[in-house]
Amino acid sequence: MEQGTLDLKTSNSALESFIESKTFRSAITSLIILNAIILGALTYSESLPGGVVSALFWLDVAITIIFAAEIALKLVVYRLRFFKEGWNWFDFIVVGISLIPATQGFSVLRALRVLRVLRLLHVVPTLRRITEALLNALPGMGAIVAVLALLTYVGAVMATTMFGNTDNPEVLQLFGDLPSSAYSLFQVMTMDGWRFEVVQKVVDDGHPYAPFFFLIFIFVASFAVLNLFIALIVDALAASERAATDEHLDEIEEELDEEFSAADLERDEIIAMLKSMKKEIVALRAAVTAKSGN
Amino acid sequence: MEQGTLDLKTSNSALESFIESKTFRSAITSLIILNAIILGALTYSESLPGGVVSALFWLDVAITIIFAAEIALKLVVYRLRFFKEGWNWFDFIVVGISLIPATQGFSVLRALRVLRVLRLLHVVPTLRRITEALLNALPGMGAIVAVLALLTYVGAVMATTMFGNTDNPEVLQLFGDLPSSAYSLFQVMTMDGWRFEVVQKVVDDGHPYAPFFFLIFIFVASFAVLNLFIALIVDALAASERAATDEHLDEIEEELDEEFSAADLERDEIIAMLKSMKKEIVALRAAVTAKSGN
Amino acid sequence: MEQGTLDLKTSNSALESFIESKTFRSAITSLIILNAIILGALTYSESLPGGVVSALFWLDVAITIIFAAEIALKLVVYRLRFFKEGWNWFDFIVVGISLIPATQGFSVLRALRVLRVLRLLHVVPTLRRITEALLNALPGMGAIVAVLALLTYVGAVMATTMFGNTDNPEVLQLFGDLPSSAYSLFQVMTMDGWRFEVVQKVVDDGHPYAPFFFLIFIFVASFAVLNLFIALIVDALAASERAATDEHLDEIEEELDEEFSAADLERDEIIAMLKSMKKEIVALRAAVTAKSGN
Amino acid sequence: MEQGTLDLKTSNSALESFIESKTFRSAITSLIILNAIILGALTYSESLPGGVVSALFWLDVAITIIFAAEIALKLVVYRLRFFKEGWNWFDFIVVGISLIPATQGFSVLRALRVLRVLRLLHVVPTLRRITEALLNALPGMGAIVAVLALLTYVGAVMATTMFGNTDNPEVLQLFGDLPSSAYSLFQVMTMDGWRFEVVQKVVDDGHPYAPFFFLIFIFVASFAVLNLFIALIVDALAASERAATDEHLDEIEEELDEEFSAADLERDEIIAMLKSMKKEIVALRAAVTAKSGN
Repeated sequence: MEQGTLDLKTSNSALESFIESKTFRSAITSLIILNAIILGALTYSESLPGGVVSALFWLDVAITIIFAAEIALKLVVYRLRFFKEGWNWFDFIVVGISLIPATQGFSVLRALRVLRVLRLLHVVPTLRRITEALLNALPGMGAIVAVLALLTYVGAVMATTMFGNTDNPEVLQLFGDLPSSAYSLFQVMTMDGWRFEVVQKVVDDGHPYAPFFFLIFIFVASFAVLNLFIALIVDALAASERAATDEHLDEIEEELDEEFSAADLERDEIIAMLKSMKKEIVALRAAVTAKSGN
Repeated sequence: MEQGTLDLKTSNSALESFIESKTFRSAITSLIILNAIILGALTYSESLPGGVVSALFWLDVAITIIFAAEIALKLVVYRLRFFKEGWNWFDFIVVGISLIPATQGFSVLRALRVLRVLRLLHVVPTLRRITEALLNALPGMGAIVAVLALLTYVGAVMATTMFGNTDNPEVLQLFGDLPSSAYSLFQVMTMDGWRFEVVQKVVDDGHPYAPFFFLIFIFVASFAVLNLFIALIVDALAASERAATDEHLDEIEEELDEEFSAADLERDEIIAMLKSMKKEIVALRAAVTAKSGN
Repeated sequence: MEQGTLDLKTSNSALESFIESKTFRSAITSLIILNAIILGALTYSESLPGGVVSALFWLDVAITIIFAAEIALKLVVYRLRFFKEGWNWFDFIVVGISLIPATQGFSVLRALRVLRVLRLLHVVPTLRRITEALLNALPGMGAIVAVLALLTYVGAVMATTMFGNTDNPEVLQLFGDLPSSAYSLFQVMTMDGWRFEVVQKVVDDGHPYAPFFFLIFIFVASFAVLNLFIALIVDALAASERAATDEHLDEIEEELDEEFSAADLERDEIIAMLKSMKKEIVALRAAVTAKSGN
Repeated sequence: MEQGTLDLKTSNSALESFIESKTFRSAITSLIILNAIILGALTYSESLPGGVVSALFWLDVAITIIFAAEIALKLVVYRLRFFKEGWNWFDFIVVGISLIPATQGFSVLRALRVLRVLRLLHVVPTLRRITEALLNALPGMGAIVAVLALLTYVGAVMATTMFGNTDNPEVLQLFGDLPSSAYSLFQVMTMDGWRFEVVQKVVDDGHPYAPFFFLIFIFVASFAVLNLFIALIVDALAASERAATDEHLDEIEEELDEEFSAADLERDEIIAMLKSMKKEIVALRAAVTAKSGN
């Protein structure tokens, strides 16, 4: 082992304990919050004096550089391990987006910079617990979301085929192509203005039986969504109960163990007594036999 | 048993194992997905080049024929058993619909062809599990859905009697006849635009007390729907819990059995010791008596 | 005991068993369903031929008379016991309403006749079970409904005081007096068009801070409603679980009892053996002592 | 201890038992209800005769004075302890607000007086139980509400950045500044007119991809809200179950204890018997040895 490698390792583990120190984390947390406030304030750039705006702008640039340095540091320390954790990917991407120079007109990139503030969701432990609980609930939703997506796709193809072949601009906006139909069906599922903003316009366009299609869709989709909710509730409850029941069963088992070990003690006592009695009897027999052997 | 029958049986069971083979199922699944994409693409028939459209059209025809052949094969192999499973009925009907020649103007039949894609719901095992869970939840809803249907029917007759006798076209559209009234009451139940799109129009038509009718309907119907949801949640939870509790109780019982069998062992030991002691004492007594009998 | 009283009693109990017979109940159930269809058909009186309408009308009159006779019969048989059951009150009132002669213009009374059809809710056993489950859930809601009513009342007084003192007819319709305010707040709670149909109109009437009032109301009321739902779910689950847990615990206890009684048997065996050994020893000692006493 | 202090203490504890007496509480409860009715009636001040209005006004003033006196009394009796209970703070503030003289135009202060009626929520025991259950559910919501607030803030900054830089007054009203954007996003979350009142206006303002932003927001926010609900349900159920399970486990444990104590009795009996047998054998041996020692 060379001296250099050792030094690198030492400096690396020093860096690692620095990065993972509470102080460093608190500093990053504070910077994210400050950044959130700055990005909020910058939405008022038109009513704020120019000096304040440019100050905020340069502060934001500074914070971006600090965040980029933080990511670079972590990359140096953790190397490939860095990409093993999902949150690091998240940080890498949202900070990476901020580094793309946004021209004045390209407001979407400027807007995406705000996503950096969502880093709070995993930097603050309380929020991280909630966020991870939410993310853990996602895989359990997979299959039923697939069913819903399939229903929406089939419904959208049917709606486009039936209603999309028209000149009425309002109906074209609703069901003119596949994405529009899927979007309109999603609107119907949210029950927002489904009758007069959607169904009635299709009916007025010469489809008097359209309500049947939409009512069937509403019933089937609501039923699937409802069961999605129920599945989430059942999973959450099962997890919570498993914990609670385990605890209670542990208590019972402990009590049973105590009782049984108490019983064991007394049984040991009985066995010991029986053994000593046997010795006595053997001795007695020996004595009697000895005498009779006289 | 004739040779012919045997041959038929053999070829039949060979066909059956072919139909039920993983390869065959995967092929059908892939075809359904391909078909879904084709049917989706065909909704863009106006913006796609004619060659592509006719290619897609003939691909769809080919897939329809393959599906029809698949059903025919299953009918040959399973005969009457084919109709014992609900999903086979489903396939039979949705593939059958595709075979009806649709004229250009009859878009509904063309739209119904897309239902074939829903075959994925039972061909893919993960989706099938979800779909069957959804279908299993239906019978438990029967009675409360009947209550809701009865409430809606009574409400619709009342609304038609009270509000339908008018010349106002807007109110006629809402409550002019029984189906319209039921539809409007359903809209009120979904809480979508209930006040200004429905109730206010009736009030303005000379029924100042109409809100009372609708508020009572909203309360009663929401309460019934809520209890429908609760019943579904309770059923799902009861099933999930029954499984979990059984498992835990099995654990306890196992532990108890172990403890008891351990106790049994020691008790057997005690009894064996007592028996040997008794023998000793009997022998001792015999010895003493023998001596005294001297 | 006079012969007359006996006769009356006998005829009364014969009547009672007739009224409570399955045949009588089925006949009444069929009549209610027939009546539901007639009342539905009568909403089409304008498009049906006059002969059919009058036939339906007289059929309805005949069924009304049969229902009245049924109630009268029950009153004769059960006397004051009749009014001990809530459902009898319900029948008494909905049939009584039908007997009020309705003039052509008084459509509300004609509409109320349809309530008779709701008798199905307790005449059909399956529906009765559901209906009574729903009614049983009501008392548990009492306190939280009182909280919601109080919140709505306080909110309505506040809204009327703050927003009702205006000349804007739209705002007057929404918050002009106490019942209107309560109704508008209920609309806000149902989330139906709350922003642009309600809040924005108040804002435009010179109350820029109105959204705060409504947002607080939405949060507080939604939270109370949510907890009402949760309370119902918890109650339903607790009842369902109590049953399931009881069953499982009974099983465990049974198993424990068996184990313990098996243990008791062996313990009895041990004690019996000890007793017989003691006798042997006592006899042995007696023998030894007798000999030594020689 | 001086006589004066004692007197003060005696009079204080007499006052305390008076304040905490059932009669005093009932009187206050009745006054609050009367006050609620008066404040409701005063919203009709324009249609009531002037005499009635001024009578109601002076009654309200009288009740306000009584409430102020009640608070003062409690302050004298409980001193600093008064501020230890949250409900006392509530009373102190809502009664204090009533004492601020409201000029005719300052309707908000007049409206806030009605909050006094909410004192019923803790003065009536049944309502107090519900209210405190609701308040107890709040801390458990903290973290997830923080997540929702963060999502809304980030969403609002993004929406303002992307959509707020426009001249379209409708879009400016929706997303012109940070609070407007947060308010509009809340509207989208309530699913009220989200498509045509909000998203479509942004799309028409030159943002064809706006639906993606809003759909992602709807999915993420609904999912978080759903999990907030589930967390509340799980907590409520866990609490209810803990109570039920504890009860059942207590029963089992009791039964187990009984069985074991019965077993202990018999074991004691066995041990006693063994001890007496040992004595017999020792005596027997002594006898034999004595004889043999002869």
